[in-house]
Amino acid sequence: MASATPTAAVVVTGTEVLTGRVVDRNGPFLAERLRQLGVDVGRVVVVGDRRDDLASALTYLLAEHDLVITSGGLGPTADDLTVEVVAGVQGRTLRRDEALEQRVRDRVADITRRRGWSTPGEVMEAGIRKQALVPEGAHVLEPVGTAPGVVLTPADGDGPPVVVLPGPPGELQPMWQAAEEDDLVRGVLARASEIRQGTVRIWGPPEAELAALLRDVEDAGGPLEEQGLEVTTCLRKGELEVVTRYAPPAAAAYDALVAALHERFGAQVFADDARSVDDVVAEALLARGESVATGESCTAGMLAARFADRPGSSAYLLGGLVTYANQAKVDLLGVPQHLLESVGAVSAEVAEAMAAGARERVGATYGIGVTGVAGPDGGTPEKPVGLVHVCLVGPSGARPLELQLGGPRDEVRLRTTIAALHLLREELAEAAGA
Amino acid sequence: MASATPTAAVVVTGTEVLTGRVVDRNGPFLAERLRQLGVDVGRVVVVGDRRDDLASALTYLLAEHDLVITSGGLGPTADDLTVEVVAGVQGRTLRRDEALEQRVRDRVADITRRRGWSTPGEVMEAGIRKQALVPEGAHVLEPVGTAPGVVLTPADGDGPPVVVLPGPPGELQPMWQAAEEDDLVRGVLARASEIRQGTVRIWGPPEAELAALLRDVEDAGGPLEEQGLEVTTCLRKGELEVVTRYAPPAAAAYDALVAALHERFGAQVFADDARSVDDVVAEALLARGESVATGESCTAGMLAARFADRPGSSAYLLGGLVTYANQAKVDLLGVPQHLLESVGAVSAEVAEAMAAGARERVGATYGIGVTGVAGPDGGTPEKPVGLVHVCLVGPSGARPLELQLGGPRDEVRLRTTIAALHLLREELAEAAGA
Repeated sequence: MASATPTAAVVVTGTEVLTGRVVDRNGPFLAERLRQLGVDVGRVVVVGDRRDDLASALTYLLAEHDLVITSGGLGPTADDLTVEVVAGVQGRTLRRDEALEQRVRDRVADITRRRGWSTPGEVMEAGIRKQALVPEGAHVLEPVGTAPGVVLTPADGDGPPVVVLPGPPGELQPMWQAAEEDDLVRGVLARASEIRQGTVRIWGPPEAELAALLRDVEDAGGPLEEQGLEVTTCLRKGELEVVTRYAPPAAAAYDALVAALHERFGAQVFADDARSVDDVVAEALLARGESVATGESCTAGMLAARFADRPGSSAYLLGGLVTYANQAKVDLLGVPQHLLESVGAVSAEVAEAMAAGARERVGATYGIGVTGVAGPDGGTPEKPVGLVHVCLVGPSGARPLELQLGGPRDEVRLRTTIAALHLLREELAEAAGA
Repeated sequence: MASATPTAAVVVTGTEVLTGRVVDRNGPFLAERLRQLGVDVGRVVVVGDRRDDLASALTYLLAEHDLVITSGGLGPTADDLTVEVVAGVQGRTLRRDEALEQRVRDRVADITRRRGWSTPGEVMEAGIRKQALVPEGAHVLEPVGTAPGVVLTPADGDGPPVVVLPGPPGELQPMWQAAEEDDLVRGVLARASEIRQGTVRIWGPPEAELAALLRDVEDAGGPLEEQGLEVTTCLRKGELEVVTRYAPPAAAAYDALVAALHERFGAQVFADDARSVDDVVAEALLARGESVATGESCTAGMLAARFADRPGSSAYLLGGLVTYANQAKVDLLGVPQHLLESVGAVSAEVAEAMAAGARERVGATYGIGVTGVAGPDGGTPEKPVGLVHVCLVGPSGARPLELQLGGPRDEVRLRTTIAALHLLREELAEAAGA
């Protein structure tokens, strides 16, 4: 199907992805990259390592899209059967490519040497021969790891190309760059036109308030679709995310939508340029030359690790203390023993003492203390599971936050981490405004 | 299609999932739960919030499976259109269910009160009315959050049921429990037969060695498929995972496979009962009444947070120190300044000093020190990006580990965390054997 705006689909193979043992990162990567190129990814299909399921998914998607990309199933084991199945669907037979086989052999030898494996060459050889089988008429994409990719059109002429890529994101991403230069892929990309995407992030309001605002925007300017805006909203971990896709002629309508969001939600809008709260906080700390230290109980390092997610974070993350046991709160953070006895570890007072202790012992501008009941055990009627006290201590004093969160342990800990980042963001925004 | 063993498909809706802003947890949950019930999930399809894409995916899957489950798109905003589209595909019209509407209204009022929202009732009302529209002839699944689910067969009689569930996992999971009791779903489950799943995890060997072993098993006993074993292998973060699905008559063949894995890989096999390295380490620490403390630089809290992922981890995780800045390594962990100057922060010596410092300051049985170059910047010819030193210090001395990891920053940090867990696992296994 060749529509005005080409569309693509992604097939992710692997029983480990289907069952959630591995989280797919390739579908999102390809969706975003193709959007930038003006190609809309309409669906991502995850199938297990089974011949029939993969063949059926390919057949279905080839009938509905202009380009199909597969990820995974190029390894040396017998359950890696993507190339073979794609060849079958496109009506092609596999052939041995001896020159390619030698290049794969060289890569395998190189990796074996670098990793210090003692695996005998003959054990590797069967995998090498398998990985270098390519369909007749395929354009080969040179291996990044040990598996080559291919671009393949149907043997009988007309039909969309399939791009076959390896599963590891570190291999798929560079190989996709090469695929963009392939003639068959370029033929699809040539028909694409720009799709823009804008993201606004808002901290705090319920989704229904956003729905009401969107209805007001429609009452004023007509249905969003007719304004050329494809708006999706998503509430996660307390952050409302409004993502809008539009073609360039709808830019004015999009600007009006962003203005309406700012007007309605004010300072709750923390980014209208796709920045995350992590970005906003990091930029503010860097701009002010300030630093942060953490004192964590229930999050136990998640907050510090989140700061360190970003390259260059050593400029503002000096260190932190994970004080899971009460004795560690006393020894490492200087929380007074009597406070733990009188008000308990999960309290506003202890959160503040942890923040102050982290700030002082690490010597940072700001200290953040976190203490709570992550569950599933340890809750009491007065201090139920989900009760968390966060406190920020900085040059202008203490900024406390009490949370009552629902959900399982990991959810409580993650939402606490995000709320702590927003607490620092709000402090930094006020400091900048003051 | 009603096959001997029923199969199911999952449709995950949401542009935020398609583009990777939200990671789907519902497909894996449903796949695992249905497997336990003897229903095989053949594919998971992710579609954006678009009417045509969702309708086309449903039509395709209804023709190939015995049960289709959707997640998401039940919210109050206009891009939440799953119920409407499913009704259309099944040939049903939507009707207002006033009693259900009142129950949804009560739930919304309750949540608004508990969260302290000040949103006016009329803003909420449009969403309530939308969420309580259900298709004619649907079985309603009572809301867990504010959205009811439905189970719906085609208006024209024969055809698989569609189960429509909300997107948030905290709502979907309990509602799926209710759906299992629904007559239409029970009709599918009644045709199911037991599928077992076994998982063996191995630390260290290259995937090709596993492929060679599997070929040996096939040489001895015939093709795995003919032995009744569906084996998938997956290498991730250095751990090789072998997952096998089989019906009860193939149990002996499965046991033989597990025995062959143990024979070939020995102590590298760290679990043959689906336990993770985290499980193995936690159980060993609990059994021995021992504890751990962390001193982290490049992982910056990830290792401590990973210990704390498990409920009850306060029994063995006492605390940790995140020493991102060099001064913090000196102040918080007692790393000698001269060591930092002579051999540098990323060195075996400093990793050991960090481990010893964490152990001593926190008062734990074991201390683990981690220091490395996570990148993308900070690498030098002698200490390139990906070089990491880990050290475990315990009653029997120091156990060092040098890693040279590839991949981006997050990959280096995650692989380091996993390698550190395996270092502790190996120490605990030796201590138990000694």
